[in-house]
Amino acid sequence: MAHIDLGVDETQYPGITGPMKYRPETGNPLNELAEVLLRKQPHPLTPGERELIAAYVSGLNECNFCCSSHSAFAAAQLPTGMALVDQVRANLDEAPVTPKLRALLRIAAAVQESGRKVTPDLVTAARDEGAVDLEIHDTVLIAAAFCMYNRYVDGLATLAPTDPASYTASAERIVEHGYRVP
Amino acid sequence: MAHIDLGVDETQYPGITGPMKYRPETGNPLNELAEVLLRKQPHPLTPGERELIAAYVSGLNECNFCCSSHSAFAAAQLPTGMALVDQVRANLDEAPVTPKLRALLRIAAAVQESGRKVTPDLVTAARDEGAVDLEIHDTVLIAAAFCMYNRYVDGLATLAPTDPASYTASAERIVEHGYRVP
Repeated sequence: MAHIDLGVDETQYPGITGPMKYRPETGNPLNELAEVLLRKQPHPLTPGERELIAAYVSGLNECNFCCSSHSAFAAAQLPTGMALVDQVRANLDEAPVTPKLRALLRIAAAVQESGRKVTPDLVTAARDEGAVDLEIHDTVLIAAAFCMYNRYVDGLATLAPTDPASYTASAERIVEHGYRVP
Repeated sequence: MAHIDLGVDETQYPGITGPMKYRPETGNPLNELAEVLLRKQPHPLTPGERELIAAYVSGLNECNFCCSSHSAFAAAQLPTGMALVDQVRANLDEAPVTPKLRALLRIAAAVQESGRKVTPDLVTAARDEGAVDLEIHDTVLIAAAFCMYNRYVDGLATLAPTDPASYTASAERIVEHGYRVP
């Protein structure tokens, strides 16, 4: 049970959805930020690639709800599905992603530790693989934002469903309707 | 110099203001979130108390720009000014804050490490000092949000002015106009 009374049935509103229902004034900008960062088009990174960055950082933060959610959202939008998400999370160095995405994921891993861990070398490595300013900016902000979402979800001790079907159902809703629709 | 070309004179747009100018689509929800969390009234915590939580977490994350900014914003809105901010940052256990605010700052410190560090005991201790659900929720989200803002600012290696007058000037603007006005 969550640390505070969210005023909802947590099995119906698990993870971040309970706190967003509890406090829509903060939930709205949180959803707007996710929509722009993870889904807004046109963008040099696909929604699947951006969700993969979110899933990867959430895994590093050991946030079960966010990692399961964004892994499902990434899998639903990547041609190679959950297999690629699992490979990236298990061993980034060997995972079959483009060199550019691997370099961006390394920046995301640095941000997860601390913003001060993002070195000029990491940024140069991403540029050398073709990353442009917007991709570097959005990778830093996606990683930073998931350091917030993950702490929000776990800091309130919200419910993380154990049934994978729950996350697959959420993925269908997010892919079709996005983050702005509750 | 920042890791990417923000398209601004960084001495005029230091810290988070450069990236917000660079990407208004993400800057707008980031500002909206700060406005609701740190300034919106009525609220059981004063804007000064909420800015103090932001300054404290930013100090733990060693983010110079955010810590200097929100320390100045807290000082400008707390009756005891910068002396109290310095005392909280130097030694929370001995600082002359209310028992409720001290318990909330302990929750914020736990969130800074990881959401999973927020124990039922920390929450019970805050409740025993009179904290209500909204204060616990907002403390968790303020602390989580500054784990994002801090990483965003430092992950892009933005400029942190060394002249305290720069932060005092920002404090006057924030206190008068808030976060929504650029």
